[in-house]
Amino acid sequence: MTALTRFDGVLEGLAARHRLRRLLPRRGLDFASNDYLGLADSALLRRAAREAIDRGVPVGSGGSRLLRGNHPEHEALEAEAAAFFGSEAALYLGGGFQANQALFSTLPAQGDLVLHDALIHASAHEGMRLGRADTRSFAHNDADAARDELRAWRAAGGQGQVWLAVESVYSMEGDLAPLADLDALACETGAILVVDEAHATGVFGTEGRGLAHGLRAEVLSLHTCGKGLGVAGGLICGARVMVDMLINRARPFIFATAPSPLDAALVRASLRALQAGPGLQAAARKRIRHAHDMAFHSCGLEGLHSQIIPVILGSDSTAMGLAASLQTQGFDIRGIRPPTVPRGTSRLRISITGQVTEPEISALFQAIAACRRGGS
Amino acid sequence: MTALTRFDGVLEGLAARHRLRRLLPRRGLDFASNDYLGLADSALLRRAAREAIDRGVPVGSGGSRLLRGNHPEHEALEAEAAAFFGSEAALYLGGGFQANQALFSTLPAQGDLVLHDALIHASAHEGMRLGRADTRSFAHNDADAARDELRAWRAAGGQGQVWLAVESVYSMEGDLAPLADLDALACETGAILVVDEAHATGVFGTEGRGLAHGLRAEVLSLHTCGKGLGVAGGLICGARVMVDMLINRARPFIFATAPSPLDAALVRASLRALQAGPGLQAAARKRIRHAHDMAFHSCGLEGLHSQIIPVILGSDSTAMGLAASLQTQGFDIRGIRPPTVPRGTSRLRISITGQVTEPEISALFQAIAACRRGGS
Repeated sequence: MTALTRFDGVLEGLAARHRLRRLLPRRGLDFASNDYLGLADSALLRRAAREAIDRGVPVGSGGSRLLRGNHPEHEALEAEAAAFFGSEAALYLGGGFQANQALFSTLPAQGDLVLHDALIHASAHEGMRLGRADTRSFAHNDADAARDELRAWRAAGGQGQVWLAVESVYSMEGDLAPLADLDALACETGAILVVDEAHATGVFGTEGRGLAHGLRAEVLSLHTCGKGLGVAGGLICGARVMVDMLINRARPFIFATAPSPLDAALVRASLRALQAGPGLQAAARKRIRHAHDMAFHSCGLEGLHSQIIPVILGSDSTAMGLAASLQTQGFDIRGIRPPTVPRGTSRLRISITGQVTEPEISALFQAIAACRRGGS
Repeated sequence: MTALTRFDGVLEGLAARHRLRRLLPRRGLDFASNDYLGLADSALLRRAAREAIDRGVPVGSGGSRLLRGNHPEHEALEAEAAAFFGSEAALYLGGGFQANQALFSTLPAQGDLVLHDALIHASAHEGMRLGRADTRSFAHNDADAARDELRAWRAAGGQGQVWLAVESVYSMEGDLAPLADLDALACETGAILVVDEAHATGVFGTEGRGLAHGLRAEVLSLHTCGKGLGVAGGLICGARVMVDMLINRARPFIFATAPSPLDAALVRASLRALQAGPGLQAAARKRIRHAHDMAFHSCGLEGLHSQIIPVILGSDSTAMGLAASLQTQGFDIRGIRPPTVPRGTSRLRISITGQVTEPEISALFQAIAACRRGGS
């Protein structure tokens, strides 16, 4: 059997189980993106793009940062990001996926342990699979479980560096890591705390610096630039020596064409906008509070923490059916199925973006409530 | 010993062996980038960027293509790329590195064989390490050796699909794959031919379609958009069913924020420019011929095939010394060391880009000749 025949069979099997993924057009109000501050499609970044083009910033880097691809816009962004996020150094890569892969495949060495939250992102797993360190997971958001796993690894003879890896805001749960407890654990044990701020940057922390800013442990933080910041790429922020190791050893950095200098210029504009005043972040926080109120009053959803509001429905077909119904009412909401989320937890992932207003948020939760009353 | 102390030691060791990589500024004439058509910094793409911004193309995608990140610019680019490169379908990813990783980690299955040229790019290796297929390498550009390896694998019981993986133009050697022979081998044996056109796109083939265009075998081709095309991203072109498999299974596609719609719009502009007339490609070919003539007459370099001209010097220090000397004379040339190239083959990698003129090319080879006469 040729591969093409095999692929036909795989795709038919996925379709039969309602698991076939297709690229669908955007349609309706944006409750599905990660454009939390509404920057991706903003006058602010359009203006920044025109200005950058006018002052001669190229639209392509032309090569690896280690060859000719290194542009002053990359270096300026890294200096400004390090200052903003409070680290000694920063490194800008083509995306958050590459940033996680670069970090986990390069820094933890054989004999080290990556001790990670059970729900950490696929890109961190990709990096761990490529790296040589031991890996252990701990129960989601349970710092005591992390401590127990660490002790068990030491008791089994583990002697190397421990890398304690979490997300500050979880992309499919919308909940927050217990960073104070994890910081204490890292300080006590000498672990390095790796915090993926993908969904926190721009939204949480002073001026949108994220939730790891100001922790006491040795911290490596990741900030994606294609979510709250509205552009593309990913920043790794940490000690100079860690960034230098990445420059020397991380294959997704060394062997990849650098992101476009124009994108770097636009991320700089987003960071400047966050520091220019509280408007962007305050508006996002206000929308989120309103969404939490509406989710509770219309749908009884409690314990919400962030701009990501999961509505867990269980079966694929229930989730996809409700998503489809909301789509026909003009709300762009996507159902999320395994393997992105664990089996039996298919859900709506509602994202409160900068592209919607409070009345639109109210209308969404009223529509969900109506669907659920009317449906199963 | 903490990781930070360990990293200090690693970096000091690299420095002592002259292997420490640092990010250096651009300085001098561009003989180091992969901007082969001079598009990255061109009036043509600046204009295209302004036009795209004016018609409302956002500077960020806001999410994965499978969620809200999918934008009409991505789909338009993919349709145009498939038509241009002669495939049934195309998929646009954030970079060539991710494209290779996605492809090799996803499509070849357990029981398959990836039979690859010994000099294939690091990103293909990354994908193979993440995948489950057997892998075998064959001697660089030796189709007979590929046939022998394939026979040996079959003789040892291998029964699955064979993926024959090469680059059409090698990034550090500048030589061309024997595609006619490899095409024949693939047709005879039912292998799928995977051709990374990273350094061919825009430069080789009719209108810059690359060298795999028009082969008879089942072909999957990769076209980076941050080299000849002057922007960023990577395109995988092949049968619809293969692209659908990637959409459903490739982690660097599913779990990554989509490239910015603006970048997609700019790649579209580059593809249109290639089809608007032979000017861009003809100018590149003329520069390359001139460089080959000068390389031969000034430096005795023979057997050159492309815009990439390696000057193999052996030791790291010789290569880096000559590069430094040329840099002081105003030529941006980089020395390339292991692990990017095999030990003992440290070299200059001269790239004939669209940012230089024929007199500047002449001056470069005269300068190299003078350095080599004056030096060791």
